[in-house]
Amino acid sequence: MTSFRSVRLAQRPTGIPSPDTWAIESEELPALAPGEFAVGVKYISLDPAMRGWLDDRPSYLPPVELGAIMRAGSVGTVTESLNANFPVGAQVVGTFGVTEVAISDGSGVHIVSSDLAPLPAFLGVLGMTGMTAYFGLFELGKPRAGDVVVVSAAAGAVGSIVGQIAKINGCTVIGIAGGKEKCEYITNTLGFDYCIDYKEETGMRKQLGTALKTVGAQGVDVYFDNVGGEMLNANLAYLSFGARVVICGAISQYNDTEITPGPSNYMNLLVKRATMTGFLVFDYASQFSMAQRRIGAWIAQGKITAPETVVEGKIDAFPATLNRLFTGDNLGKLVLKIT
Amino acid sequence: MTSFRSVRLAQRPTGIPSPDTWAIESEELPALAPGEFAVGVKYISLDPAMRGWLDDRPSYLPPVELGAIMRAGSVGTVTESLNANFPVGAQVVGTFGVTEVAISDGSGVHIVSSDLAPLPAFLGVLGMTGMTAYFGLFELGKPRAGDVVVVSAAAGAVGSIVGQIAKINGCTVIGIAGGKEKCEYITNTLGFDYCIDYKEETGMRKQLGTALKTVGAQGVDVYFDNVGGEMLNANLAYLSFGARVVICGAISQYNDTEITPGPSNYMNLLVKRATMTGFLVFDYASQFSMAQRRIGAWIAQGKITAPETVVEGKIDAFPATLNRLFTGDNLGKLVLKIT
Repeated sequence: MTSFRSVRLAQRPTGIPSPDTWAIESEELPALAPGEFAVGVKYISLDPAMRGWLDDRPSYLPPVELGAIMRAGSVGTVTESLNANFPVGAQVVGTFGVTEVAISDGSGVHIVSSDLAPLPAFLGVLGMTGMTAYFGLFELGKPRAGDVVVVSAAAGAVGSIVGQIAKINGCTVIGIAGGKEKCEYITNTLGFDYCIDYKEETGMRKQLGTALKTVGAQGVDVYFDNVGGEMLNANLAYLSFGARVVICGAISQYNDTEITPGPSNYMNLLVKRATMTGFLVFDYASQFSMAQRRIGAWIAQGKITAPETVVEGKIDAFPATLNRLFTGDNLGKLVLKIT
Repeated sequence: MTSFRSVRLAQRPTGIPSPDTWAIESEELPALAPGEFAVGVKYISLDPAMRGWLDDRPSYLPPVELGAIMRAGSVGTVTESLNANFPVGAQVVGTFGVTEVAISDGSGVHIVSSDLAPLPAFLGVLGMTGMTAYFGLFELGKPRAGDVVVVSAAAGAVGSIVGQIAKINGCTVIGIAGGKEKCEYITNTLGFDYCIDYKEETGMRKQLGTALKTVGAQGVDVYFDNVGGEMLNANLAYLSFGARVVICGAISQYNDTEITPGPSNYMNLLVKRATMTGFLVFDYASQFSMAQRRIGAWIAQGKITAPETVVEGKIDAFPATLNRLFTGDNLGKLVLKIT
């Protein structure tokens, strides 16, 4: 028998998750049933959406149950198998959870090859992160060459890809990120036209006005929002006619313990005949392989850089690593590499 | 020389317009230039949007200038003419303003016939009000038979038409209005399936939950918002998948003197892959005559009732009549008939 450790939800957090939120437990691996296989997890994806899964309220996925292994996308290697489609040694991606070892029957699991891309990429730019950027931008943002695209959390996993895809499509791109270092990375390495540092004292609305003036734009054609709050509200104030606001996330609000005020400038949707739309990447699952091929080609051509922050540690590094998402202490896709 | 009176903007209001907002002035009618004609105004349209025109800030139309005649749609009779297209005696609709007499060169003016419909109808159900209901519902709400459509200010000029058109198209319709009398009118005369009385003490969210349960619905497919505030926020909480929120107005907020909080439940757009879109009726001007024919046919078939509140008075009745919109003290289209 093999024993393994996993991170389970001990109690639902109020605000930012604390050590009490989690329980690290050890258990014995049961014998496999026919059709099952065991996966030794190597890389675990950390995503802002995880915070929402901890709350006991209806959403696009059911909440993680108390006592259950925390839900997470991950990549690993098949270590034992009673399923011919997933032989021992195969590298697989799936929602295996925050655990050292998972048992799977293969549903929702795909074989990936580290010859095509480094394994963490299948959690990031070629995984749900890249798919979110691609479909959110194209299906809802509907960018056209010459459009002004603003993206928040621009140094984050999704935002960094959104901006680069918009650039490839001939748009003028303004990123919003926290800190001088991130902003320099965004303009110098990722090639955005401008970066607003939200940590500067100048208000977001004024900064956005300056940004638009600097790039010679009248208004915002596409706003891709990962943050919510003042960033969303400022962009609503600067919409151009027929603008598209893409609601992808609201990381500034996920840990709020009181009701968060909505964007007071929403009536500008009327004045500017604009649209604000939410989406979930799973709705485009039938087109994922097409998008992966296209993004893969852009990476191969050097047109897309996919920043990653890979934290190495044991499974019990998960709680602290997750919280880095909420302090802005990561660049690009955040992944925990199980050592 | 003829003298006439008009209502001019004396000072910009804070909150609800007061008597100080307006100046009633008398002047002599100047001689007509070639191509011009004079209109004796008979009916003046009162619309929630007027409140926005009084503020000095950019919007879809420029603000009414201080000292200028208040902007308004109106119907009248040509009394004097140097324009062959608009002969003396013709009945015309246009943006003549809050005045007893207007001089026009014919731009934006249309001849109407009281044989087709009573003259106030050209300001209401066959005018901008009806067009707003028609295009907001069809172009943005995209109703399909079986959809649940919720409309706020349901006893108002636009809301009453939206709900009836939705019924004609096979939808289940829930109205929101203030007071038992209005609610009875909405269900008994207009034929809505349910009416929520927002003046009842039960919270809007709870009432909407009860309404949906009563009509046997899971959620809101189309929310047509004329009100904003808690009504918008409650509807966002009950969106069905792929729901469409149509932002037509926000009368609950037009007189706010502080920044109005936005709808805190907007993130449900993401969970439900829903859309919130603003529009302006003028964008559909090329299709107005088609919509007027269709609505005219529904009226002739007895499928649409267009409620009207016609206030009779002199031009100086305008200020008090306008404020009835903000106290909810009118049923359907509010029109001032100049006696």
